[in-house]
Amino acid sequence: MFILVTILISICVVDSSVIINRFEDEYCDLDIELKNEIASYKNITEQIRGEVINKGFGATVFDELSNFIDKFGARIAGSDVLENAIDHMVNITRQRGFNDVFTEDVKVPHWMRGYESAEMIEPRKQTFKILGFGTSVSTPEEGITAEAIVINSFDELNKIDKQKIKGKIVVFDAHFVSYGDTVIYRSQGASKAAKKGALATLVRSITPFSIYSPHTGSQYYSDGVNKIPTAAITLEDADLMRRLQDRGEKIVLTLKMFSSMDEKTSRNTIIDLKGREHPEKQVIVSGHIDSWDVGQGAMDDGGGMIISWMVPVLLKKMNITPKRTVRAILWTGEEPGLVGAAAYLNKHINEVPNINFIMESDEGTFKPLGLDVAGSKKARCIIKEILNLFTPVNKMTESGSPGSDIILFVQKGVPGASLLNENERYYWFHHSEGDTMNVENANDVIQCASFWASFAYVVADLSQDIPRD
Amino acid sequence: MFILVTILISICVVDSSVIINRFEDEYCDLDIELKNEIASYKNITEQIRGEVINKGFGATVFDELSNFIDKFGARIAGSDVLENAIDHMVNITRQRGFNDVFTEDVKVPHWMRGYESAEMIEPRKQTFKILGFGTSVSTPEEGITAEAIVINSFDELNKIDKQKIKGKIVVFDAHFVSYGDTVIYRSQGASKAAKKGALATLVRSITPFSIYSPHTGSQYYSDGVNKIPTAAITLEDADLMRRLQDRGEKIVLTLKMFSSMDEKTSRNTIIDLKGREHPEKQVIVSGHIDSWDVGQGAMDDGGGMIISWMVPVLLKKMNITPKRTVRAILWTGEEPGLVGAAAYLNKHINEVPNINFIMESDEGTFKPLGLDVAGSKKARCIIKEILNLFTPVNKMTESGSPGSDIILFVQKGVPGASLLNENERYYWFHHSEGDTMNVENANDVIQCASFWASFAYVVADLSQDIPRD
Repeated sequence: MFILVTILISICVVDSSVIINRFEDEYCDLDIELKNEIASYKNITEQIRGEVINKGFGATVFDELSNFIDKFGARIAGSDVLENAIDHMVNITRQRGFNDVFTEDVKVPHWMRGYESAEMIEPRKQTFKILGFGTSVSTPEEGITAEAIVINSFDELNKIDKQKIKGKIVVFDAHFVSYGDTVIYRSQGASKAAKKGALATLVRSITPFSIYSPHTGSQYYSDGVNKIPTAAITLEDADLMRRLQDRGEKIVLTLKMFSSMDEKTSRNTIIDLKGREHPEKQVIVSGHIDSWDVGQGAMDDGGGMIISWMVPVLLKKMNITPKRTVRAILWTGEEPGLVGAAAYLNKHINEVPNINFIMESDEGTFKPLGLDVAGSKKARCIIKEILNLFTPVNKMTESGSPGSDIILFVQKGVPGASLLNENERYYWFHHSEGDTMNVENANDVIQCASFWASFAYVVADLSQDIPRD
Repeated sequence: MFILVTILISICVVDSSVIINRFEDEYCDLDIELKNEIASYKNITEQIRGEVINKGFGATVFDELSNFIDKFGARIAGSDVLENAIDHMVNITRQRGFNDVFTEDVKVPHWMRGYESAEMIEPRKQTFKILGFGTSVSTPEEGITAEAIVINSFDELNKIDKQKIKGKIVVFDAHFVSYGDTVIYRSQGASKAAKKGALATLVRSITPFSIYSPHTGSQYYSDGVNKIPTAAITLEDADLMRRLQDRGEKIVLTLKMFSSMDEKTSRNTIIDLKGREHPEKQVIVSGHIDSWDVGQGAMDDGGGMIISWMVPVLLKKMNITPKRTVRAILWTGEEPGLVGAAAYLNKHINEVPNINFIMESDEGTFKPLGLDVAGSKKARCIIKEILNLFTPVNKMTESGSPGSDIILFVQKGVPGASLLNENERYYWFHHSEGDTMNVENANDVIQCASFWASFAYVVADLSQDIPRD
């Protein structure tokens, strides 16, 4: 669990607006032969693009996404609906005559949200919309009624006298800077406040924009610290409490939160298009099939899951088999902490040297821009050269932590990449009731699908492996 | 009530993006003397601007808005909180040494929302967030469980066989074009569907954008038609049901809605700065103090109310008294159908010839742009000439229905105007939980306040009345 905490702090930090593209300053000395070989893939990438965009395969994939989301809605880890959704993906794969699809069992935590409410009772009555964070414990039956104190940052919390925190509900009011910078108040806030005697924490939602929309997500209790209830509040209520406190008003809240926690069996789903020359070598494309229990997991990560699912399915349909195996993985249990990916890595640890490249789309499937890449300098040079086949979809960033699940593999030295896309509004909807099919644009998803499949094909077919350090 | 229905269909239709500025094509033949007189007001408008913006009066007004919204929150007509909010405005006026403030009783409908829920039970379970519309009747205790039918428009409803509507819940899925075009599904949908035997209606929220946010508002039952429950659903759920229906799925919903309706006494609030030459003549500036019961009525219409309230207060503070009386009116009962304004007009009908000009801000106090003006050609020429004092805040549109409450006066021939501002996102928040102080930008509100006060002063002080037809 501790490792996962560390990992989770670092995931999903790709914010394309702030990443400096250091790559442009590097010098790539690729063999002319390799450059020519890469250039020779232009035709086949155009064929794939033609199949996806002009011949309607992409539209079919978008319909599959829409059907999937409408049929199942939210799919929290451990729920029956998630298992039904996994069965569905296996079935539609087989219905396309694709039989090399199988699942692997994974034990996942199953946190279930119960009744939740928050009411300000002083200085006036106002109901607050809240969303408990995954793994949050319950309040006592009668709730917690206590004074609230609004805190800007862990720095402020560290400096403040313990007596001012003890017995209170701590409201973390850190404004959104980037997901990576701000999510720590959600993931670690409860334990940090509990250490100073807080009874509960409410956390300003991790988003730059709100229509009174709270955003849930995972949080982690530190060992040896009292577990206190913790939930998201809206930007609106965080700002309201901040103003009231600044005016010297005493704020009293009543918080009721109920939840249960157990363990269930879920499954990673694996779809293989075996390589024609090196079936033991793999290029993995992936997204996660589980979602939070609010919204419908269309953007996080229905879109990324479906464009990854389609890669082997499309290539088989087109009867183009690359040299290496293309494996699509639909991870389970990403939201509670990369649980499916960790189990997969553990089970397949011996195959890690044979994972030539690993890809994940988990930050939206809006208009595609390129890739966020991790790997050796040589690897990045090759990836950049391949990306140029897709100009203008050839942006390359190097955040250091592409994807979410795949970061576990990247940390083992596997070169990998996540999809860069125009996801400026991603966090407006992320982990909220707003993550529905309305966020998905058919044309964008189809463009992503075309790029994703073509890129994976080229990497899987190239005469040389993507080199490691 | 019927008159109000007609009126309400036409209110709030100002959408600055679609209004053609016909005025630019007209020829104004103003006397050079009048033009010179108007130009001579430049200095005093600069003084007012200096007081509001540089000397901090606008910041004080913004603080009053913030205090007011935070102190009272939602203020539905007929509620105690609205009456307390009215007392507060009277008190803060008097606290500034301004004693010419009084209230007039108005009977207002008091609709109270009770428990509301909607659940899709076929083809799968999904809870829908709903907001009943003001005046909606309740469902039976056990709710209404019925098949849903998704309809695009009244045209489609008119053409469809009655047997396909009878016994069903009609889902109106009209996409947002403009408020005026689309709001008819909210205001009239229930009665139109009831005529064909529907049991209830759910209406796609009147907004172009959503983070799973339903929008309430008024609706009106036609005489002699069965009153059926009616509520807003989100864009997301409207689209979901549309897709399900298009795929041939049977949709079954269970709808529970409870509410109560009675009549209460509320008050219009009137603040007079008596004119130094023609105290019997009035320039009225106004906004409404009531709001819906969701959100906090910051934008609708806290902002418009506060910048109107401040006009006489500011002018008195600056010791500049125009020739005519400047009357600020904080209307009550706007949301249930311009009830306060209608009562005021009835009571003050004899004063109508003396209302030189009437102004209302009820479509946001974002960055000011100018005015939406109704009046004779000569009136519009004068207004345009005055507006040029405030360039670049000199845009003039003529929608035909400026403001909301003041439309009743405009229909009696009183020239009037509403505030044009950069309110492209107004309907994202309108009548939703998102209408909070977070929508309000201090600088924008201050800029609006400066413009609003200066403009009102010039009109109130001009040597000639604003001419009628």
